[in-house]
Amino acid sequence: MAERLITEADLDDLAVGAAILGTGGGGDPHIGRLLAGAAVRAHGPAEIVPLDQVPDDAATFMVAMMGAPTVMVEKVPSIEQVAAAVRALARYLGVEPTHVVCAEAGGVNALVPVVAAAQLGLPVIDADAMGRAFPELQMVIPTLYGITATPMSIADEKGNQGIFDTIDNHWAERLARSATIDMGCSAMISLYPMDGATARKALVPGTVSLCAELGRIVREARAGHRDPVAAVVDRLGGAELFTGKVVDVARRTEGGFARGEATLTGTGGDTGVEFTLRFQNEHLVAVRDGTVVASVPDLICVLDAETGTAITTETLRYGQRVRVIAAPCDPRWHSPEGVELVGPRYFGYDHDPVRIPTEVAA
Amino acid sequence: MAERLITEADLDDLAVGAAILGTGGGGDPHIGRLLAGAAVRAHGPAEIVPLDQVPDDAATFMVAMMGAPTVMVEKVPSIEQVAAAVRALARYLGVEPTHVVCAEAGGVNALVPVVAAAQLGLPVIDADAMGRAFPELQMVIPTLYGITATPMSIADEKGNQGIFDTIDNHWAERLARSATIDMGCSAMISLYPMDGATARKALVPGTVSLCAELGRIVREARAGHRDPVAAVVDRLGGAELFTGKVVDVARRTEGGFARGEATLTGTGGDTGVEFTLRFQNEHLVAVRDGTVVASVPDLICVLDAETGTAITTETLRYGQRVRVIAAPCDPRWHSPEGVELVGPRYFGYDHDPVRIPTEVAA
Repeated sequence: MAERLITEADLDDLAVGAAILGTGGGGDPHIGRLLAGAAVRAHGPAEIVPLDQVPDDAATFMVAMMGAPTVMVEKVPSIEQVAAAVRALARYLGVEPTHVVCAEAGGVNALVPVVAAAQLGLPVIDADAMGRAFPELQMVIPTLYGITATPMSIADEKGNQGIFDTIDNHWAERLARSATIDMGCSAMISLYPMDGATARKALVPGTVSLCAELGRIVREARAGHRDPVAAVVDRLGGAELFTGKVVDVARRTEGGFARGEATLTGTGGDTGVEFTLRFQNEHLVAVRDGTVVASVPDLICVLDAETGTAITTETLRYGQRVRVIAAPCDPRWHSPEGVELVGPRYFGYDHDPVRIPTEVAA
Repeated sequence: MAERLITEADLDDLAVGAAILGTGGGGDPHIGRLLAGAAVRAHGPAEIVPLDQVPDDAATFMVAMMGAPTVMVEKVPSIEQVAAAVRALARYLGVEPTHVVCAEAGGVNALVPVVAAAQLGLPVIDADAMGRAFPELQMVIPTLYGITATPMSIADEKGNQGIFDTIDNHWAERLARSATIDMGCSAMISLYPMDGATARKALVPGTVSLCAELGRIVREARAGHRDPVAAVVDRLGGAELFTGKVVDVARRTEGGFARGEATLTGTGGDTGVEFTLRFQNEHLVAVRDGTVVASVPDLICVLDAETGTAITTETLRYGQRVRVIAAPCDPRWHSPEGVELVGPRYFGYDHDPVRIPTEVAA
C-alpha cells in the first residue's frame, strides 16, 4: 500500500486479506473490491490515516453493509448507496463527517469504507471496530466502552432510508436487521458516530493495512513457491488446527443469517481426525475429534490448502481441500464483557471460550 | 363539545363516535380516551380548529398509534410516547409544529391527537386523513394527492425511536410495520408532515367533531328511549344492512393484523338470512345471503342492537345481538385511484366496490 493512499493496485491484496480476517463471514470481499475499484477509478485513491493521528475533534462515521452474505453476492449495492448512508446520518446529526471508519476488517466491510472514502473525498482510518468480522452490529469494541451504535442510518439501493435512535445496541441490531430484511436482506448502514478522541480509544488500530499486508504475504508466498498458509499463521501469531477435506455442509438462511455446520475429515498428518466447524455467517467454534480447540472471540479461518485463499461459510462445499487456522483476537474481547457480547454462549454454545492452542503452532 | 376546546367532558362522546367510524378497527377508543383524559387533566383542554381556518404556512404533524388492535388493548402507550413521536419528526425536519392532525377518525387514533395536542400545547385540526379507519398507513386521502407519508417517525414506550424516508407510501408502511412488530406490535408514529395549504386540500373536514356528535346522538337517543342505531344511520346518511346474532368468528393475528370473518344469522325481520362480515382490523366486506351488499371504501359498522355501541372486530363473539349498518365514505375514495388504494381487490377480494344500497334505508 502506497504511503497514506489506497489505490486500485492495493485492492486485490486488501480483498485477499479481508477474506482471511472475515473468518468465513463478512460477505465476499470480491463484491467490495469491485465497488472500491469503481469508486477509486471515478474519484481517485482514498487517503488512509493511522488511528493515532486522528485529531480529538474529528467526526468519524462508520460505514458497513448489513445483511446475509448469501444475498450480498447477488444483490450488489451501488456506490451512491454507500455514500447515501453516511450522508443520511450526517444530515440527521447536523455534523460534517471528517473520517470514514471500517466496522469490521473482515469480508466485504473491509472494502466498503474505501468506497465511501473515495466517493466522499474523506480519509479512511487505518482501524476497525472488531479486528475481525462478527455477524451482529452491537458486536464491536466500542460497545465495551458504552458507546452507542445510534443514531444510525440505513439505506437501500432503491432510495429508501431510515434512522434509528435506540436505548441500547441490541435494539439497534434488532430494528436495523428487520429493515435490512425488508430491504431485500442487504442494506448499507452508517453508525457509531464518534469524535476522534473516542475513536482512538475504542477502535482496533492498523487492521485495514493488516488486510493489505496479509494479501501481499499470500501473493508473495505463492510467487516464491513458499507456503502461503504458514506465512499467514506466522504473521497473525496464530496456530494451524487441521488439514483435511470437507465431507458435509449443513447450511440454512435463518433470521437474515447463514447458519450451519461443516464436517471435515483429516488428510496427511491429520488422517483419521474428524473436524467440525460451527458457523453463523462467521466460523464460531472448531471441534477436533470431539474437543473444542478454538472458538469465538478468537479467529477461526478456513483457507484453501494450496493457495491460502480464504473460503467463506457460504462457499464451503463437499470435497474442498482446506487448512483451518486460528489467530488471537483483540485482547479486549477476552474481558468478561467481551466474552458476554461475542463468546460461545451468546451464540448458543454451552461452553466458555477456548483460546487458540499456541503450542500447536510450533 | 365547547367552542373550540376539547375538555374531559367531551371525551366519552368522542370515544363512542370514534368507535362507530372505526368500522370495527382502529383499536379500542377506550384506550385513547384514558390517555386523553390523563393528558387533558395534566395539561388542560386541547384547542380544536376548523380545517378551513388553518393558515397556509402552518406546520401540521399527523400522529397515530400503529399496530394490532388486539395488542393495543393490553400494551397501553404512555402520554410521553405520543409527544415523543411528534418531537422526533419535528427535530428531523427542523420544523416547529403548529398543529396536530388526526390520521383516522375511527378508533383509538381519533383520541391520540388530543393527547398530543394537550401535551404539546398545540391545537388539533377538526379533520382526519381517512374519514374513517383503515389498516395501513398509505391508505389516506393525502396519498391520492401524491403527498408522501415520510419523513415519518416511530417511537416505542421503551425509548427507541426511528425515522423513515421512503420512495413511496407503501415502503413507509412496510418498514414502519416491521419496526412496529419489533417494538411489540404497537408503536406511536408521526407522519405526513404538511403545510396548512396542503392540509386544507388533502384532509377530510369536520370528522373529529363528527365523532363527538355521533357520541352525543347515541347518548341522547338512549336517554330519550329512542333508537340509537337509527339515529346514527340518519346522521351519516347511511343504511341498515342487517339485524341478527353472531354465530361464528374465525380470527387470526397475521402480519401484525387481526384478520378473519364472522358469520351471523338473522333475527326479527331478517330471520332466515345468513350474513358474513370479512375484516382486516376493519370490516371490509358485508355479504347478505351470498351477495355482497357493502364493501370498502364505504363504512361497515357493527353496533350493539340495543345500545348502539360499536363492536370492534377483536371483540366480536358468539351470541352478540347486533345491527350492521353502512355509511358513505368521503367521495374521493370512489375515484379510480381511491379504489385502487383501498378497494376490495387491494385486500384480496375479487370484486369491485359495492356502494351502500341507500334504498334499503327507506
